[in-house]
Amino acid sequence: MNGAESLVHTLLACGIDTCFANPGTSEMHFVAALDRIPGMRAVLGLFEGVVTGAADGYARMSGRPAACLLHCGPGLANGLANLHNARRARSPVLAIIGDQATYHRPLDAPLTADTEGWARPVSAFVRTATSAAQVGQDAAMAVRAARGWPGQIASLILPADTAWDEGGVVAAALPIAPPPAPDPWAIEQAGRILRSGEAVMLLLGGATLNAAPLENAWRIAAASGARLSAQQQNARIARGRGRVPIARVPYPLDQALAAFAGLRHLILVGASLPVSFFAYPGRPNRLAPPACDIHILTRPDQDGPAALAALAAAIGAPPAPIPESPRPTPARGALTPETVAETILALLPDEAVVIDEAGSFGRGIFAQSHRAAQHDWLQLTGGAIGDGLPMATGAAIGAPGRRVVSLQADGSAMYTLQALWTQAREKLDITTIVFANRRYAILQHELAGVGANPGPRAHAMMSLADPDLDWIKLAEGHGVAAAGATDCETLATLLAQSFRHRGPFLIALNVD
Amino acid sequence: MNGAESLVHTLLACGIDTCFANPGTSEMHFVAALDRIPGMRAVLGLFEGVVTGAADGYARMSGRPAACLLHCGPGLANGLANLHNARRARSPVLAIIGDQATYHRPLDAPLTADTEGWARPVSAFVRTATSAAQVGQDAAMAVRAARGWPGQIASLILPADTAWDEGGVVAAALPIAPPPAPDPWAIEQAGRILRSGEAVMLLLGGATLNAAPLENAWRIAAASGARLSAQQQNARIARGRGRVPIARVPYPLDQALAAFAGLRHLILVGASLPVSFFAYPGRPNRLAPPACDIHILTRPDQDGPAALAALAAAIGAPPAPIPESPRPTPARGALTPETVAETILALLPDEAVVIDEAGSFGRGIFAQSHRAAQHDWLQLTGGAIGDGLPMATGAAIGAPGRRVVSLQADGSAMYTLQALWTQAREKLDITTIVFANRRYAILQHELAGVGANPGPRAHAMMSLADPDLDWIKLAEGHGVAAAGATDCETLATLLAQSFRHRGPFLIALNVD
Repeated sequence: MNGAESLVHTLLACGIDTCFANPGTSEMHFVAALDRIPGMRAVLGLFEGVVTGAADGYARMSGRPAACLLHCGPGLANGLANLHNARRARSPVLAIIGDQATYHRPLDAPLTADTEGWARPVSAFVRTATSAAQVGQDAAMAVRAARGWPGQIASLILPADTAWDEGGVVAAALPIAPPPAPDPWAIEQAGRILRSGEAVMLLLGGATLNAAPLENAWRIAAASGARLSAQQQNARIARGRGRVPIARVPYPLDQALAAFAGLRHLILVGASLPVSFFAYPGRPNRLAPPACDIHILTRPDQDGPAALAALAAAIGAPPAPIPESPRPTPARGALTPETVAETILALLPDEAVVIDEAGSFGRGIFAQSHRAAQHDWLQLTGGAIGDGLPMATGAAIGAPGRRVVSLQADGSAMYTLQALWTQAREKLDITTIVFANRRYAILQHELAGVGANPGPRAHAMMSLADPDLDWIKLAEGHGVAAAGATDCETLATLLAQSFRHRGPFLIALNVD
Repeated sequence: MNGAESLVHTLLACGIDTCFANPGTSEMHFVAALDRIPGMRAVLGLFEGVVTGAADGYARMSGRPAACLLHCGPGLANGLANLHNARRARSPVLAIIGDQATYHRPLDAPLTADTEGWARPVSAFVRTATSAAQVGQDAAMAVRAARGWPGQIASLILPADTAWDEGGVVAAALPIAPPPAPDPWAIEQAGRILRSGEAVMLLLGGATLNAAPLENAWRIAAASGARLSAQQQNARIARGRGRVPIARVPYPLDQALAAFAGLRHLILVGASLPVSFFAYPGRPNRLAPPACDIHILTRPDQDGPAALAALAAAIGAPPAPIPESPRPTPARGALTPETVAETILALLPDEAVVIDEAGSFGRGIFAQSHRAAQHDWLQLTGGAIGDGLPMATGAAIGAPGRRVVSLQADGSAMYTLQALWTQAREKLDITTIVFANRRYAILQHELAGVGANPGPRAHAMMSLADPDLDWIKLAEGHGVAAAGATDCETLATLLAQSFRHRGPFLIALNVD
């Protein structure tokens, strides 16, 4: 058994059965091993950012790490942006990165690069295998690191000779530690604060945004009068009718500050300290008011759902009803942020998976999504645009049988458009809706936000027009059927059509 | 004057007047400064790999660094693969990378990343600006580093507040040191070896592949009987009728070893030690025979052309005629590697710039290109595929008035296809020829090379079919006119058409 074979066997033993791959020469033995060892689904991406973003989406929906197979050095570099996003989502991902043979690396052949150096900033675990005999054990340790609660990036670098040499040894899965229990003192302290009568907010992140812990948070808020919010970027929120209609911290600075105005206490439950996405000249960058005390009920690596259950019990919060909201209905006429949101949400299939890289145009859809059929809402978490189409690809594989609805800004879509080809090859049930406003609208807002006035050159740097991108041709060029809409009626017809059929479909909305 | 304005003024003072940009929020003051300060051409790319690859192509043709404007952290990461290629080409490139405001970085907002850590492996110079007052001086030092002979990557990281704060100071250009002169002892030693009567090869790299130093190398070879070759990856070779028909070291290992067989001495002139691109089980990875002595006439950072002139004089080599080769003529019928090469080379315009990311199908074109009209030949230097279309984009801007002919493998094209949009927006005279064999043919060769037999899963990981990419739609989707050819006559017609018209055109060849 060679090192590559021991690696594939070990991955399967550790519960990893999906590999998103963009292999190169140094990974050929791993690829060959996939033929000899049944059980590993290999999914090809035509660019590494597709592969890493797909692993993120897969992990968010399945709760398990997939393997990413990446080519040495620059191949990893191409996948870093979406590993950054996956790290911010706390998704478990195992990156397997080929590399020069151990004895070839010192010769500095053209593709030689500082693979470890590039991997380190996104990885909780980085190891370069040193021999075929060790690869299995290295892989088991990498999987354990990836599954470190709630999820981490583990990078295993595989020099070609450690894959092709004989002497591979299959390793057994290592035990995965459960998340640390919440701190009883922190629960007691949170209870005291909630009973203080002072203005309090519970800020939720991570697994507390699943349906059951959200209900506990809702009970706590109802019983105590505390405000409730999800943090700004969230890997996954259980959403839709009958579920807690939690708000999330808005992106625009003034709205974000307003969300925290008047607070005396902020209790973080798996959330990070709320800060502005960027700094702006002369503006605050911490969102909570200066007089607000910050309390940590659970860190992101602790068991937030258990803490909410314990806290609800501690304050004796009774079950609290979730209010009924009017169902959205398909809109008519022109495509505005509001009519598009209503139309999409009215038609959203049960148990859909919504991918939100909707940008400026689609920013308001989330706020209304509690009125739609039940679904999961997955956001861009790290701000590195180009995660939407790949994440949709991986989510569809991680949640088979559920329709993925991918809300996609045009500028962001162009970073990893190649994901469409993988959607077509794997015949994934993904409906992509491109909001084609032909500009980096967010930058136009931001330019105003930093007090700069755009002239013609600055304007050109924020325009995607001249020439316009033709989204129908781009989709069809990748093998994905597509159509355009310029009114809500057509959008509704196309959505309904796409939801009835298997496979991917892209709807291009020509919007302002 | 704010920091961003002092930066733009300083760049102009240092001779940098072209900026390839994919800006984000943290770069908005730089973008705004472009409006207020005339003289900087800003070229938008829709993905960072386009921007960095374009800077590489621009530098190779103009001999000067362009600026790349990249967004913080993951934005840089997306541009690393082509910075790796530019580093291997020894192209001068100034990367300006926005970042969180200095006081915002400790708050770890979602886009915060280890920008310096990612920049360092490709950069000879990395500096994070600390204040608006220092940015000008930092930029002047970065430009000097980029222009360190023959060219380096310099990364200047620009926290947002160092751009927006007042107090910017314009810096003057710093003196650029000329390349170190060759070592007289090395020239004397090379002369002795050439006169020894033993088997010798001169292996050339870098600036020695310009037309005049190539003629000196040719004289030396003719007078001494030495073999002559360019190294395997070369940033730019002066090529075509009337110029030295130098070979380059082949990529396939057996051919590469054969090129060095029987040598007793290898003299490196601006070239690196020749090694195989990858290691293969049980095969040699140093290309020169064990008994061959390696001599360094000039390191890549020394003045190789001066060394060749001095060596030619030292051994008294007379001018040597360059043999006439038959002109290529357009072929007829089926598209084979040979007929495609003949057809393209027959029609190649005078002073074309050829970009070679031709992959397996187009690998043989170079060997015949000495028979074509005079041109420059630019190769992928670092092995990170996805450099061709961006490099063509930058080369067209760096060599105005010359037709760029971009020889492009299909698999590689998919990494940075967004470059087509920039070609359309800037109306660049680029003819792209995509060799669409619908597979990673190189991996199929390599899989055989490492002794692995592909089964159906491995085969799927190397196939770009199911679905086929539609190159006409992909090009038109990006705003580039395109047509396909399945025979040489159509190819010739399309080539001639594209060379007569301004702007980009893509020809898709359906090949096996």
